[in-house]
Formats: sequence, C-alpha cells, structure tokens
Amino acid sequence: MKLIYRGKAKDVYELDEDKVLIEFRDDLTAGDGAKKATKEGKGQLNAEISAKFMELLSKNGIPTHFIKFEKPNRHVAKKVEIIRVEVICRNFATGSFVRRYPFKDGQELSPHVVEFGFKSDEYHDPMINEDIAMALKLVSSEEEMKEMKRITLKVNDILSEFLLKKGIILVDFKLEFGYTGDGKLILADEISPDTCRFWDAETREIMDKDRFRRGLGDVLHFYREVKRRIEK
Amino acid sequence: MKLIYRGKAKDVYELDEDKVLIEFRDDLTAGDGAKKATKEGKGQLNAEISAKFMELLSKNGIPTHFIKFEKPNRHVAKKVEIIRVEVICRNFATGSFVRRYPFKDGQELSPHVVEFGFKSDEYHDPMINEDIAMALKLVSSEEEMKEMKRITLKVNDILSEFLLKKGIILVDFKLEFGYTGDGKLILADEISPDTCRFWDAETREIMDKDRFRRGLGDVLHFYREVKRRIEK
Repeated sequence: MKLIYRGKAKDVYELDEDKVLIEFRDDLTAGDGAKKATKEGKGQLNAEISAKFMELLSKNGIPTHFIKFEKPNRHVAKKVEIIRVEVICRNFATGSFVRRYPFKDGQELSPHVVEFGFKSDEYHDPMINEDIAMALKLVSSEEEMKEMKRITLKVNDILSEFLLKKGIILVDFKLEFGYTGDGKLILADEISPDTCRFWDAETREIMDKDRFRRGLGDVLHFYREVKRRIEK
Repeated sequence: MKLIYRGKAKDVYELDEDKVLIEFRDDLTAGDGAKKATKEGKGQLNAEISAKFMELLSKNGIPTHFIKFEKPNRHVAKKVEIIRVEVICRNFATGSFVRRYPFKDGQELSPHVVEFGFKSDEYHDPMINEDIAMALKLVSSEEEMKEMKRITLKVNDILSEFLLKKGIILVDFKLEFGYTGDGKLILADEISPDTCRFWDAETREIMDKDRFRRGLGDVLHFYREVKRRIEK
C-alpha cells in the first residue's frame, strides 16, 4: 500500500481512488512535537475510541469520512483533501486558553467558543478567522467556514450529552474537515483523548493527553478508562 | 478638569456628563510600551490628522464620537464607554501579520481582512473572535461585533479612496468603538499615523509609526507629510 501521509500520530495509506486506510500509531507528541513518547497500545485505544465516536456521529446525521474499524488499530475511511483549518470547540477554559485570556482554569464558557486555527507546524497553528482563511486560500468560500462551525457545534452537542451520561465532561476538542472527490465537506481525522480534553464529571480528574503534556503519568490507564466507559 | 483616562498617547478629561476633551500627547510607544519616546509636535499632528479623518467619516455617514478640533492638540468628543475590542482592518500584509501567517510583506490581501483583538496590555492584545468577545463579556451581543466589522469595512472604503487620491496607500488601521450614554455604538479613539499604516503610493515609503517601531528616523517629517497631503 502506498503511504500518502505520515502525521505525528497516524499514517494514511491509499486503498483505492476513494478510500484510505488510517493506521493509529503509538506515538504521542506535545508542544508542536517538542515533547515525544511512544506508549504501546495508545494507537489501538485511539482507533477504538475514535471509531466509537465517528459511528455515534454518523448515526446522528454528521457526515464523516469513517467507513469501518479494522483490528487492531486501523480505520478505513473516505479519501479526502484535508482542509488546513483546525476547528476548536471549548466548553470549559483551560490550557493555552487561560494563558491567552483572563478566564479561570476550569471556568465554564458561555457561549461555548468555536475558534479556527491554521494547521501549520511552521507557524505553530495560529488562530485565524474567516477573512484570513479566505486570504490564505484555505477554503473557497466563507460559507465553508460557517458550515464547519455549524457541524462542530452539532458534534459538541452530541458528544457532550453522550459523554456526560458516561461520567465524562467534554472540556474541549479539535476537529478537522476535508473535501471528498465530489467536493462534499465532511468530518475527517480522529476524535480521541489525543484531540479532546476529557475530565471525570465527579472528580474532574484529567483523562486525556494533558496527562502526557503535563507529565501526570498513567496516560494509558485513563485512555483505557475512557474506552471502558464509552463502550458500557 | 477631571482626568478620567490616561492612555499611552492621549489624556481624556471630563467636560460634562456627555462630553470629554481628548488631549493628544507627544508620546510614542511601541511593542506594548517597551519602546518609548517623545517627539515634540506629534500630538498636534495626530490631533489635526485625526480630526480631518473623523470629519470626512462623519460627512459620509459614519457615527463618530468627534465633535470638534481645538487648537493646538485637542478634540472635543462625545463621552463613551470604550469597548475593549480593537478592530483591525488589513488591505496589505505587513508587520506582525507576515510573522503570524505565510503572506509576503507588502502582499495585497483578498479579501481585505478584519480581525478583532482584546484590548489588554497584560495579555498583549490577543486576537479574539465573536464567541470569545461574548464569553469575556466585552460586548453584549454578537450583533455588535458584526456592526463594528460592518462600520470598519465602510471606513476602509472611505479612507482608502480618499487617501489614494492623495498618493497614500492605506495599508492597515486599528479602530476602537464605544457606547454613548443612550447605548449607541459609535466610532471613538483616533485615526492617525499612530494607528494606521500609510505608504507612499509611488515609492511605498513608510509614512507612519512603523518609522519609529523600526528605527527608520524622520518620524515627524512623514507625519507632517501625511497632514500636508490630506489637507491639500
């Protein structure tokens, strides 16, 4: 199979004209790749968790690239041209957000905040807006930015409600979108403890990649706990 | 008179319940106040230039705080509660914008970019969007953000056209808005070589505060040249 993209935590292989195979690796990175590690089993856990979320979203009418999960750590997905825009949705303030603005760590945000970032390691994923995305030719119309925001808020509603029933607060998350061959905008990439922040709803214990970023330990223990709860 | 606000380059005195007197000082600052200087006559030039622009905008239907110019360096203006949002409009990429994103210095932007910043020295005026402005309670509705953007684009059209006839390119500029006592959103602050970038349309020579920021010298010479051209 032809490797068509090697990301920080996933490899993407071409299956045919319309489909790719995404392999979730065990690599963990933080701070634009400044901090790196490999945790055996992480790729499999993320592939399993992300498959579960993608299935849930598909069932709820969100167009996604996900076709099927393949043991132990792979997704078959629609081939898309990834849009170089990260869409971040924040329900609670934490991380870089409380360093950038005067919010208290853990403060619930009202309204929930959707922000756009330019996917670029070289430029450190800077925040952008609709005009900048257009000027950078990342999208072909402002309508596409609005569509990504609209889908993101719907994803937020679906996942937040689902997770809360499992005792997990969806603190924030990052989505990526792509265009299919026939120009349809669909959700792509992954939804996992690498790309979301999850807190235990009772104890507010961190259950995501922040354990790695902050050196809190027990990273996989908590990824496994997320998987256990959402499969219950 | 009661001093009600001392900014980096202006003092604001209360005249009565509805009016203030704004005194343009000779102080120049750059880099969040890290670089400072005093240039005798700068305050007067900015007061004169800003008065000219405010009059032009008023004549063209833009609601502004400006009432009248008072020699040598003062504006009488409507008293407003300043909104802690900077509205930046960019026609050409330069300065921090080309460090943040892959644009070439001097590249014309299409579309013209409007971005919002949170007015805060402590947080270094970080970029925000509508959701963040609402979550920070900087404005009371998303509609107000849209209204500021709408007015800014109109200001851009009026000033760009006017300046080009005077041989000046309006590269970018920053606006501030405020609420009057009866809750009306109007343009406030100043429009001057301290808050705009101006390039000579022929030579692209810098005619604004970038001369000070970059240590190019002849700061007041070019402020005077801007004044001379717009009064022609």
